[in-house]
Amino acid sequence: MSEPVINRAKGGWVGYRPEIRVLDCTVRDGGLINDHLFDDELVRRVYQTCVAAGVDYVEFGYKASKKIFSPSKFGRWKFCNEDDLWRVIGENKSPAVKITVMADAERTDYHEDIIPREKSVIDCVRVACYIHQIPTALDMVKDACDKGYETMIQLMAVSVVNEHDLHTALELFAKSRASAVYCVDSFGALYSEQVRDLVRMYLKALEGTGKEVGFHGHNNQQLAFANTIEAIVAGANRLDATISGIGRGAGNCPLELLIGFLHNPKFDLRPVLQCCQEVFVPLSKQIEWGYSIPYAITGQLNLHPREAIKWRAGPTPDNYVDFYDQMIEED
Amino acid sequence: MSEPVINRAKGGWVGYRPEIRVLDCTVRDGGLINDHLFDDELVRRVYQTCVAAGVDYVEFGYKASKKIFSPSKFGRWKFCNEDDLWRVIGENKSPAVKITVMADAERTDYHEDIIPREKSVIDCVRVACYIHQIPTALDMVKDACDKGYETMIQLMAVSVVNEHDLHTALELFAKSRASAVYCVDSFGALYSEQVRDLVRMYLKALEGTGKEVGFHGHNNQQLAFANTIEAIVAGANRLDATISGIGRGAGNCPLELLIGFLHNPKFDLRPVLQCCQEVFVPLSKQIEWGYSIPYAITGQLNLHPREAIKWRAGPTPDNYVDFYDQMIEED
Repeated sequence: MSEPVINRAKGGWVGYRPEIRVLDCTVRDGGLINDHLFDDELVRRVYQTCVAAGVDYVEFGYKASKKIFSPSKFGRWKFCNEDDLWRVIGENKSPAVKITVMADAERTDYHEDIIPREKSVIDCVRVACYIHQIPTALDMVKDACDKGYETMIQLMAVSVVNEHDLHTALELFAKSRASAVYCVDSFGALYSEQVRDLVRMYLKALEGTGKEVGFHGHNNQQLAFANTIEAIVAGANRLDATISGIGRGAGNCPLELLIGFLHNPKFDLRPVLQCCQEVFVPLSKQIEWGYSIPYAITGQLNLHPREAIKWRAGPTPDNYVDFYDQMIEED
Repeated sequence: MSEPVINRAKGGWVGYRPEIRVLDCTVRDGGLINDHLFDDELVRRVYQTCVAAGVDYVEFGYKASKKIFSPSKFGRWKFCNEDDLWRVIGENKSPAVKITVMADAERTDYHEDIIPREKSVIDCVRVACYIHQIPTALDMVKDACDKGYETMIQLMAVSVVNEHDLHTALELFAKSRASAVYCVDSFGALYSEQVRDLVRMYLKALEGTGKEVGFHGHNNQQLAFANTIEAIVAGANRLDATISGIGRGAGNCPLELLIGFLHNPKFDLRPVLQCCQEVFVPLSKQIEWGYSIPYAITGQLNLHPREAIKWRAGPTPDNYVDFYDQMIEED
């Protein structure tokens, strides 16, 4: 790994770190708000925006098991069938942008649903798991690598994993064939020093393996972008972001902020701004995402945002005190 | 200065730094949105909330010159007359909470309008200046100290001050009688490493003087709270925040996030949440503040947010591309 060339200089940031890769998970994480029911036009537009903006990976959704999740209830981006991906990407597939899907441990029929890469439009499979699912996740990584895919792994909810278990998990990841390991702040609970410590721990555990460390933040405490910067400073080279910060609950690191920060001239902010105003401003009037106080409360308490999501969808979304009292009582 | 006792521990943050003091500038910075036209009820409620929440300083507004600013055009919190302050604070004045006003260099008739402290409800005068106004600001500090006030100084727009001038300014501040010196990110342009470097520079320049370092952030890039944390980690003990993050343009560090982060048991989050839902949620439907993309663009470009404020008030507030093109052209 070469030395970071990002440095602070008088008047701003100069230079950039060429190893940094951005993964757009607008459609995948945004799909968690609306059961993955985005229409083709939106998904195509996100892909084209990412191509124009210089994004490295575009994640379209999950490869969810149809035995567990009914295709009559969920949109097509819950399953990312090959024909759906082909239809929106079509002949415009950019060689510079890798198509990614997420495969959840224990919720993916990976032996059947992930086909050999040479027959697929997908370039990269990102395996997601909780700490108790590591053996399954590692088998999924092996399966996807055997089939010819680039493979990444992300351990979710790291803010509730104890340090001993995390060390063990990282040792196992280091021996896997995944190209990158993501630190994921699922609850939006981490503060900058914690992000720094975690990213350093990941880097140390993966030293010499050639694997990159990634970061995926949530904006419960308005820290998704800030923590992504901290991860960069600590040495993470793989960064997740979404257009307009769309994503479950408080959402993610906004791609427009991240691209404004990274100074690699390959990135272009303008197409992202255009997509924000033409697609996501209207969408934000139909579905809600982004920071609000109930998410800050679950983030501060290091809890899953599910109660905050329910509260925001309920009859008194701005009754913060009752929500706080309820969460403190349950804590 | 004692050693920070804030440390990261497994599962969260433990301990707290007893020296930390929070200044609420809800009415002062929020007043920049509505020409300081808040009614007594709101101002009284903010004060009572701060008392209940354990906030250390409450800043009500400016001591602006009536020769420059007409009281027929601006609300009373532009001038903070003694009788207005008395009326909202009344007999409920808490001995634990200091009443603060801001005095802008070259926009305050400080010799006349700041009366001797023993006749005033005000405890503390915060002098604000740009880098070219340091001599005036220092005279204002002397004047307020001579009159018996605690005095603080804040150098605005530090992101466009060159380092040599900043060193000189800090040397002069070190010799003044101000009790605290604030680092102010007026443009919301600073990233965490820059905040860290600046706060360390301030601390070094003020070493041995007993003066504290403060931080005042803006949320243009969703970094106001994150940068406030960075300032704390670097050693700043004076922190600005506003309820619901209200403030000019993208607003400030939200008090509810900051209090959720500081673990000193003297702080209480609940009254702040109550004030958010009862006062600031309704207010946010009448006047706009908070993050939006035009502020991110001026922040990224290290420019004053005035063009973004105009744009958000204009006919096409969500036309980000045209705004970006205009700012790039003017840059």
